[in-house]
Amino acid sequence: MPSNIGYATSGPASPLAPVEFDRPPVGDEDVRIEISYCGICHSDIHQARGEFDGPLTTNYPGMPGHEIIGTVTEAGAKVGKYAVGDRVGVGCLVYWGAKEQRGAGDEQYQAPPPVYTCNAPSPATGEVTFGGYSDEIVVNEHFVLRIPDALPSEQAAPLLCAGVTTWSPLKHWNVGPGQTVGIAGIGGLGHVAIQLAKARGADKVVAFTTTAGKKSEQAERLGADEVVDMTDADAAAAHAGTVDFLLSTIPTPFDMKPYLALVKHDGVFVTLGMLEPVPSNGIDFADVTMRRITVAGSLIGSLAETQEVLDFCAEHGVSADVEVIRADQVNDAYDRVVAGDVQFRFVIDNSTIRQAG
Amino acid sequence: MPSNIGYATSGPASPLAPVEFDRPPVGDEDVRIEISYCGICHSDIHQARGEFDGPLTTNYPGMPGHEIIGTVTEAGAKVGKYAVGDRVGVGCLVYWGAKEQRGAGDEQYQAPPPVYTCNAPSPATGEVTFGGYSDEIVVNEHFVLRIPDALPSEQAAPLLCAGVTTWSPLKHWNVGPGQTVGIAGIGGLGHVAIQLAKARGADKVVAFTTTAGKKSEQAERLGADEVVDMTDADAAAAHAGTVDFLLSTIPTPFDMKPYLALVKHDGVFVTLGMLEPVPSNGIDFADVTMRRITVAGSLIGSLAETQEVLDFCAEHGVSADVEVIRADQVNDAYDRVVAGDVQFRFVIDNSTIRQAG
Repeated sequence: MPSNIGYATSGPASPLAPVEFDRPPVGDEDVRIEISYCGICHSDIHQARGEFDGPLTTNYPGMPGHEIIGTVTEAGAKVGKYAVGDRVGVGCLVYWGAKEQRGAGDEQYQAPPPVYTCNAPSPATGEVTFGGYSDEIVVNEHFVLRIPDALPSEQAAPLLCAGVTTWSPLKHWNVGPGQTVGIAGIGGLGHVAIQLAKARGADKVVAFTTTAGKKSEQAERLGADEVVDMTDADAAAAHAGTVDFLLSTIPTPFDMKPYLALVKHDGVFVTLGMLEPVPSNGIDFADVTMRRITVAGSLIGSLAETQEVLDFCAEHGVSADVEVIRADQVNDAYDRVVAGDVQFRFVIDNSTIRQAG
Repeated sequence: MPSNIGYATSGPASPLAPVEFDRPPVGDEDVRIEISYCGICHSDIHQARGEFDGPLTTNYPGMPGHEIIGTVTEAGAKVGKYAVGDRVGVGCLVYWGAKEQRGAGDEQYQAPPPVYTCNAPSPATGEVTFGGYSDEIVVNEHFVLRIPDALPSEQAAPLLCAGVTTWSPLKHWNVGPGQTVGIAGIGGLGHVAIQLAKARGADKVVAFTTTAGKKSEQAERLGADEVVDMTDADAAAAHAGTVDFLLSTIPTPFDMKPYLALVKHDGVFVTLGMLEPVPSNGIDFADVTMRRITVAGSLIGSLAETQEVLDFCAEHGVSADVEVIRADQVNDAYDRVVAGDVQFRFVIDNSTIRQAG
């Protein structure tokens, strides 16, 4: 009889339902983690519903979840960083793409790509990786993070993806004092990004949203100095050329021109999680050239950056706003995420998965 | 009777023809320059033929020319940098957009924009500015460059636009030793960019072209270590992810995906002179994000950078390949530029303009 249980989908139209399976044995460098909480990222939904293509095409059955918090219950013979009982986290990555990449840093950008926590060919099992909507996970210790005491587990979970994904570009482009920082989109990523930009000492943090009515108050509570309704052309025009660094968390292809118009000479516009072609006329190179704007994308973050953002959040009182659900509520939660009805991240209480077993 | 003469167009379908007019009197900070040579830039043709729109829409009559070399014949009372007899140049800009911008640097990026040498409202005359296809020009000394003795006038002319436009991004992004530099497009800008990248000490300079047959030999003579035919998918694929800094001199909207594929993790792709929206699917943000590529544009260069590139070219033996023509050949030369039949820049011998008077 299999010893593990998790929630998985058997096809793009199937709901998530309990599935029994076996995690691989703990290798010399691995730890086994009993999972306490797992966040629900929008990309979980794309994956479960078969909405990715190319190298991200879903292999069924699929078990999502890459914002994992838990406790070490077993440690391999060569594990040095963690001991049984440690509270730890696992994010988007669980192994190197090739042995030679050990120690190279920026794991997320290596070629061949690293092994993703979900739905990637697993070097340990030969099958695709199963994520954190489950009772346990077994992971090489390099890909395991220490959770600072000051962070409650359920609020720390989303930092392992939403946190590091917004932290990495803020750090890479040295965002901080003297700058006006824009955050486009106030959702799972955006609500963390507002807090991180403020805590890094930005002079001013401005949130840009198309749903200002329902998001303005929360954005201000999180530290935004101003909230701009991008459906109001006059409001957008009043902020033209005022932003040093604009981080877009908008996850689908969009017309970037109104956002590029916000950016100053020598400013930077970074998009996260929008992994598709820009729509026709979505970027006008007259804008980009006349103000020497940098347009870039950024992918998750390194393991070192993930530890860094956890420590930074503990020190600066930054955390995710979460709504904790039972595992059997996950299908409803997916519908609510798609409808924008969450402030700001659902987190599964994984003790309710073991109860399903 | 007017005292000046130049070649101008009266409408988008009209050929350039001699026109008599008067340059404004020399103000306290101005110099009068007798023009010896003026380069023909592709944007002259767009302007003469009414192919720009928006703020660049042509006001007729139009007199192009912004790669100007000549000799000072008169200097205003407060002119300190130049004296009668000095060999000087004038590029794309002739005045600040506002008085407060004096001393601010990066003149080309200021708002309101600076006064362009051609077809911009002139603070001196109230009419649009007339460019260098003429016998003389009167310019504020801040916008006048010193031509180093080592540079022949006709070869120096294109450096005032093509030279500084490629120099500015190479400098801004610190291109030099340790890097593989790509130059896309081997024309007026590209043939100077190859030389500049090499002279700045890049480890390797690779020229990317869709007309390799006719351009390969010249690109290698100019210093390219390799020439890649972008119409050959295998050749392009062999260079995937190898370029640290890719400078595109392609002047019209193009599919950027094959070029972005050449760029390394954390590499930079800068486009020059392509001031239009990117075509549908022209950029895939999966590419940009998965390797954290910077996409940017760059506009001409500052006056300080223009002097710098002239001095650098004199010191390193860099210059433009030119074909000198008489002024009455300018309409034919335009057709040849459009047909790609020039290696690499036409330059007008302006003494032939005075002979037309």
